[in-house]
Amino acid sequence: MELGVRLRFQKFEDPEANPEALPDGIDSDEYIIATYYMSFPKAFNPYQIAQIMAVEQSTGTWIPVPGESPETRKKHVAKVIGVYETPDHEIMIPDEVKWRDYIIQIAFPYENIGSRLSMLFTAVIGNISMAGKVKLLDLKFPEKYVEGFKGPKFGIEGVRKILGVHDRPLLNNMIKPCTGFPAELGAELAYETARGGVDIVKDDELLGNVAFNTVEERVTKYMEAIDKANEEKGEKTLYAINISDDLPDVLENAEKAIELGANCLLVNYLACGFPVLRVLAEDPSINVPIMAHMDCAGIYYVSPFSGVSSHLVLGKLPRLAGADIVVYPAPYGKAPFSEEKYIEVAKAHRYPFYKIKPIFPMPSGGITPSMVPKLMNTLGIDLVVAAGGGIHAHPDGPAAGARAYRAAIDAVLKGYTDLKKYAEENSIEELIKALHL
Amino acid sequence: MELGVRLRFQKFEDPEANPEALPDGIDSDEYIIATYYMSFPKAFNPYQIAQIMAVEQSTGTWIPVPGESPETRKKHVAKVIGVYETPDHEIMIPDEVKWRDYIIQIAFPYENIGSRLSMLFTAVIGNISMAGKVKLLDLKFPEKYVEGFKGPKFGIEGVRKILGVHDRPLLNNMIKPCTGFPAELGAELAYETARGGVDIVKDDELLGNVAFNTVEERVTKYMEAIDKANEEKGEKTLYAINISDDLPDVLENAEKAIELGANCLLVNYLACGFPVLRVLAEDPSINVPIMAHMDCAGIYYVSPFSGVSSHLVLGKLPRLAGADIVVYPAPYGKAPFSEEKYIEVAKAHRYPFYKIKPIFPMPSGGITPSMVPKLMNTLGIDLVVAAGGGIHAHPDGPAAGARAYRAAIDAVLKGYTDLKKYAEENSIEELIKALHL
Repeated sequence: MELGVRLRFQKFEDPEANPEALPDGIDSDEYIIATYYMSFPKAFNPYQIAQIMAVEQSTGTWIPVPGESPETRKKHVAKVIGVYETPDHEIMIPDEVKWRDYIIQIAFPYENIGSRLSMLFTAVIGNISMAGKVKLLDLKFPEKYVEGFKGPKFGIEGVRKILGVHDRPLLNNMIKPCTGFPAELGAELAYETARGGVDIVKDDELLGNVAFNTVEERVTKYMEAIDKANEEKGEKTLYAINISDDLPDVLENAEKAIELGANCLLVNYLACGFPVLRVLAEDPSINVPIMAHMDCAGIYYVSPFSGVSSHLVLGKLPRLAGADIVVYPAPYGKAPFSEEKYIEVAKAHRYPFYKIKPIFPMPSGGITPSMVPKLMNTLGIDLVVAAGGGIHAHPDGPAAGARAYRAAIDAVLKGYTDLKKYAEENSIEELIKALHL
Repeated sequence: MELGVRLRFQKFEDPEANPEALPDGIDSDEYIIATYYMSFPKAFNPYQIAQIMAVEQSTGTWIPVPGESPETRKKHVAKVIGVYETPDHEIMIPDEVKWRDYIIQIAFPYENIGSRLSMLFTAVIGNISMAGKVKLLDLKFPEKYVEGFKGPKFGIEGVRKILGVHDRPLLNNMIKPCTGFPAELGAELAYETARGGVDIVKDDELLGNVAFNTVEERVTKYMEAIDKANEEKGEKTLYAINISDDLPDVLENAEKAIELGANCLLVNYLACGFPVLRVLAEDPSINVPIMAHMDCAGIYYVSPFSGVSSHLVLGKLPRLAGADIVVYPAPYGKAPFSEEKYIEVAKAHRYPFYKIKPIFPMPSGGITPSMVPKLMNTLGIDLVVAAGGGIHAHPDGPAAGARAYRAAIDAVLKGYTDLKKYAEENSIEELIKALHL
């Protein structure tokens, strides 16, 4: 039952999907290239399995049928373009090897999918997600696929322009506690943290449009609090209000928030679905940046053997769908995440991607001021430093907590590697105290 | 980096979330009970980790903050109600045990979440999906959570009433090839398969609203074909048209399809997102059954260590969201799926669930007529037999293919265990030929 694809399908032959039948140069303007990790028992023929995958996820089924003409197949079938074993056995397979590992690449015709995220998932990791040890590792898109998306409205440059901050990482604070408090309390905390120097205040992902703290109340009270803080500090602040909800409520929450003056939206895009993020980002009336939250991402990426790699689910795909900032796990805090994957996700946010704007990575989860040098050493200045409890738990209150993070950022920009030294030399009490947390 | 939850969080104490502080009887009217598999290195204290999970996914963060009052916490914090090791070490942990396995149960206050699927996912498997070896195994809901949903409009009884079929499994056919053909060809196949005795014709999940075969063309042509077949056979047929798409297109496709006379909708609910399925099901103008397709489900359930169990993602949750029929993997066909899990999913479709109607399981993937006895032996008559290539590849064409499946169903209803014997005794050529496939 665990064999991934049954042996009986090996009888199925398809010259169009067969690597031997393909020219070297697949037309990269017409195909979406998906790369998979796969593992199967040594008895299986990997070339046949790859071919079956390609056919199953495009024109075919497990048995040839009359409606499938050679023309149909040639145009619409997905094509195997690479089958690579790791390591590459050529002579014999050692007895101790029971399962063999592969990287398999399949080219999916753009025309089957269109510029859609829903149909992309169905094609590239739909039914084959259930085939056993299959993990989607990468997606490369033709320009016309990406042309069908509007992408983020703001991106790094646009968000920096709104805030007037061009030469340092941004500082974010998530209001804590996460949920279970009235809007008044949250607004007080937002005021404190904003006046302390936070650039973006955000709701926790767990706080939705709940009876004890509605979107309407929150946006009104927090925006007032932030305006007051802005006057005091002489800087601007965004407030990312969590509008996550089922449909159509999520769209109504967004509309209401914008009407009431919200200047940033937070959406739990995996819990709501990629199409929700996209429709918000592509709606011309949503004229504010969108922050996309990572919750549920582990369902996709945690298994080494199945699901979808993190740089897609937390990087390239939310960027394509239109997020301006993506909250994702930092390897230094409370989430277990490898540093190399964390860097790959940030690359996916910022690397050239046709006309799609680069966006902010926001590594998150238990970030303390002492982690700021590491964050900036790995990601540079184009990131959002996410601080939650690390700000609210400061012994002198949230404003002092925010100042501690801003001081940590300044220290790194000034070339200090030792935050304690910087704090002491410049007598920055808030940072000295924060380093003890 | 793989330790799931870091040791440094063990300092965090919370009497409200602590199992020792809880009464035995948690108020089951107020809490959603989530059950998890977890595994962590033997050095970890499982009671503390469970407590941290409960706090992290409700009110708290990794460090106490001033805004979190005792009242807030008491009302809104999630509560650990069970921590069970397998096996249950009491004296000492053997040296060879490096990681320990647990079942952990946490009660989430309904009030934090509301009757929402998006916020449910964020709470019960949001950030903790990234915590390492954590898999969501079960969800038990209070009645008021479920009362907030309308559920399926038709369910088993409603779909049977439309079709006038009360005493046998339904027969479904997915049109093959999957994609890459014009609506005319599909309509011809739909006519053939419907007149052969198929109750529900469906699109393949891979066929969306594409330029070479639009929803508009398909619904018009297929419904004509089906009407013609219905007259001929004296039975009714549903056509589940795939309206899956990004937003708002998926809703517009549905509306258009209904206007043009569609009598059933197909939605790739995991690729589109649960909220899309729900909003379609709860829309009073969508007055036809909804078939929910399984693609992408493996992302959730395939890993034994992470994600979400199949009976939730393919069973209880799409039923709650309003699917009337759920397509899911059969263990006898091409998907690797355990028979016990396959039965649990069907139970989740049909077991009592407050006011939510029981719905049809539709085990799918490489189903041949010879598998029909097994399907009916395990699931009874309240299922949809899904036949794709097995119908279209019949040597005498799709109508004969459909008749073969109907004959297989009849044979089982008449008490035959040997289909070949039944086919030969009753000279049913179509079935005899189909058994050779």
